[in-house]
Amino acid sequence: MLGNCVEQVRKTVPLVHNITNYVTVNDVANVLLACGGSPIMSDEVKDVEDITSICGGLNINIGTLNERTIAGMFAAGRKANELGHVVLLDPVGAGASALRTKTAMELMKEIRFDVIRGNISEIKTLVQGSGSTKGVDADIADAVTEETLDGAVAFVKEFAKTSGSIIAVTGAIDLVSDGERCFVIRNGRPEMGRITGTGCQLSGMMTAFVTANPKQKLEAAAAAVCTMGLAGEIGFSRMQAGDGNATYRSRIIDAIYNMDGETLEKGARYEVR
Amino acid sequence: MLGNCVEQVRKTVPLVHNITNYVTVNDVANVLLACGGSPIMSDEVKDVEDITSICGGLNINIGTLNERTIAGMFAAGRKANELGHVVLLDPVGAGASALRTKTAMELMKEIRFDVIRGNISEIKTLVQGSGSTKGVDADIADAVTEETLDGAVAFVKEFAKTSGSIIAVTGAIDLVSDGERCFVIRNGRPEMGRITGTGCQLSGMMTAFVTANPKQKLEAAAAAVCTMGLAGEIGFSRMQAGDGNATYRSRIIDAIYNMDGETLEKGARYEVR
Amino acid sequence: MLGNCVEQVRKTVPLVHNITNYVTVNDVANVLLACGGSPIMSDEVKDVEDITSICGGLNINIGTLNERTIAGMFAAGRKANELGHVVLLDPVGAGASALRTKTAMELMKEIRFDVIRGNISEIKTLVQGSGSTKGVDADIADAVTEETLDGAVAFVKEFAKTSGSIIAVTGAIDLVSDGERCFVIRNGRPEMGRITGTGCQLSGMMTAFVTANPKQKLEAAAAAVCTMGLAGEIGFSRMQAGDGNATYRSRIIDAIYNMDGETLEKGARYEVR
Repeated sequence: MLGNCVEQVRKTVPLVHNITNYVTVNDVANVLLACGGSPIMSDEVKDVEDITSICGGLNINIGTLNERTIAGMFAAGRKANELGHVVLLDPVGAGASALRTKTAMELMKEIRFDVIRGNISEIKTLVQGSGSTKGVDADIADAVTEETLDGAVAFVKEFAKTSGSIIAVTGAIDLVSDGERCFVIRNGRPEMGRITGTGCQLSGMMTAFVTANPKQKLEAAAAAVCTMGLAGEIGFSRMQAGDGNATYRSRIIDAIYNMDGETLEKGARYEVR
Repeated sequence: MLGNCVEQVRKTVPLVHNITNYVTVNDVANVLLACGGSPIMSDEVKDVEDITSICGGLNINIGTLNERTIAGMFAAGRKANELGHVVLLDPVGAGASALRTKTAMELMKEIRFDVIRGNISEIKTLVQGSGSTKGVDADIADAVTEETLDGAVAFVKEFAKTSGSIIAVTGAIDLVSDGERCFVIRNGRPEMGRITGTGCQLSGMMTAFVTANPKQKLEAAAAAVCTMGLAGEIGFSRMQAGDGNATYRSRIIDAIYNMDGETLEKGARYEVR
Repeated sequence: MLGNCVEQVRKTVPLVHNITNYVTVNDVANVLLACGGSPIMSDEVKDVEDITSICGGLNINIGTLNERTIAGMFAAGRKANELGHVVLLDPVGAGASALRTKTAMELMKEIRFDVIRGNISEIKTLVQGSGSTKGVDADIADAVTEETLDGAVAFVKEFAKTSGSIIAVTGAIDLVSDGERCFVIRNGRPEMGRITGTGCQLSGMMTAFVTANPKQKLEAAAAAVCTMGLAGEIGFSRMQAGDGNATYRSRIIDAIYNMDGETLEKGARYEVR
């Protein structure tokens, strides 16, 4: 099932419009190409409607937001909604600043998101309307562990229901829910946290997966999470003495480039609750 | 002949001012360093005239244009023209949005470009004044193939004549013409399309090549195209099982770093029509 | 002693706010993660005060400054000063344009910097209030060599005294002084100059080192310089036939990722004058 989602991306080559931060944008583009999609970036308010119109999906990431690009996010989001395109929100740093929290909350009010993907601290901020995120990484106190799993699953399901979006919370254990079912995913490696932007990369890839699989969006979002985590495992297995996070970054993208349905089916580790 | 153009870049270390998109800017900088040039980036209207004045060439790429950087493009272009510097236009996404098409057309009206480099869909848009570019990649219907080659050569020659610029159309087969002669280049690999920004990288490098070879600009532009394509072939030959587009990206830049005149002379595959 | 500074970074995981150029920002983030710190980027004036408040250090790099981000630099700098956070200035291209020189000078007037790190041409510009920097690389005429070392040490000590900041001048020989003592450092390789952004990366890492070692800021700044240079040596020793600057870039970051106190103690080559 998840394997089929990957194959669909390669078959349909979804064009994804990204309004994303300038820190990790190059990796987002290369991951989109690696998984079989096609990226385009545009954040100018006078440009985004045309660009989003020729795309199938829109990925909004607030990682280095500014007044100008915020206007672009709203304009692109509205247009994508109007056209029935897939739209994803990555609320980077929500809870870490008032501007980020406010922007994410207002985007959620005005734009209908198919998926919202963030770490647990960011997602909690969206639920509470305020937060205390420590930078762009999740607060340890919030972490989803085997001990807190039941509560976390219920929390994510509930937020998916009230928001009407698929909610993807990524961390040591990843949760992806549409309000009814919740994928609990255990792929990945802790060393991925030492590479900048694996979350941003996942958001870009997830937009492509959901765009390519409009009839099974939940499975597609979960497949993207498994692909990223499994690529992290495969990439790590190819590391040699002296390698570090820079080489690891390339190895993960390489593993996504070589991912096929069969490899994903075999390697995906998840349960549905 | 083409080999000499590479050697000239290494001898003269041309300083190139880039107003380029934030997606591929790091790779553009590293490719400029790899080929023997020196990059500097500046897009603020109050900064660009000073910066372009100390450079030898100017590379304008509209890939993530916005109102502020568009103003910078015009200011830098005018200054570079005034000083007789080499100026190149990379009309990324012309045809994909009205803003991109309009900006590219207006830049062509106001600035004298030594070279315009793009894919066939972008270049057709510049000729027609409108287009239907599919994102930042060329439309398949437009592709230059052995079957459509004669017409494409005539088209590129004609546009070079009317525009007064060297026109470089890159794709499976690359065409570089000054209106009289047309280099038809068959270096490169299709897998290069799975890396973001090989076109942007080429534009940066081409600016350095033309700047370093002011008396044979056409040959220099063609040499840059051959260098990129040959580096793509050399880089691919070094790929190992499990490698993908991230590693390939580095291998190509590495191959440019190691390119010398002799290697290029031996590896360049082109005819002049 | 220097080894201890590295270990402190890994123990305390300093969160560093970076207002930096979009050319090298991804590498800055990955280097910060490699050395044990945690990066966050924000340049919007309405966002920077909140972000800098949750961080321990602030790294201001003017490499692709614009009117909007300049306002962010001042706002963040003032806030960081108010909170007693470590603040570093990297005056990229000071001397190459009036805007860069003016911005760097005004930042120095308004903000109290713990460290200023640049190449010799940039630092000379800050002393003189004007300059003739050739792009973003140091002018050869300014270079710190064994012949000019005595004068350069005196110059750097003097500027550290008058500015009240630790001054780090990096090049073939690196100098780091607080006005009393001057570390003269001979780690590194000339090939590092063929990678874009090793200076920017060092500035990010240095901010983390100084933030993690508040009681020995001079040693921490010197340790960061030695770490970068030694990583350049280790990375170079792992290069293979056909490798170039792209692979070298990754190898250096990898070497930082694997750097520990013992390796640094053994590999650091410096004297204190």
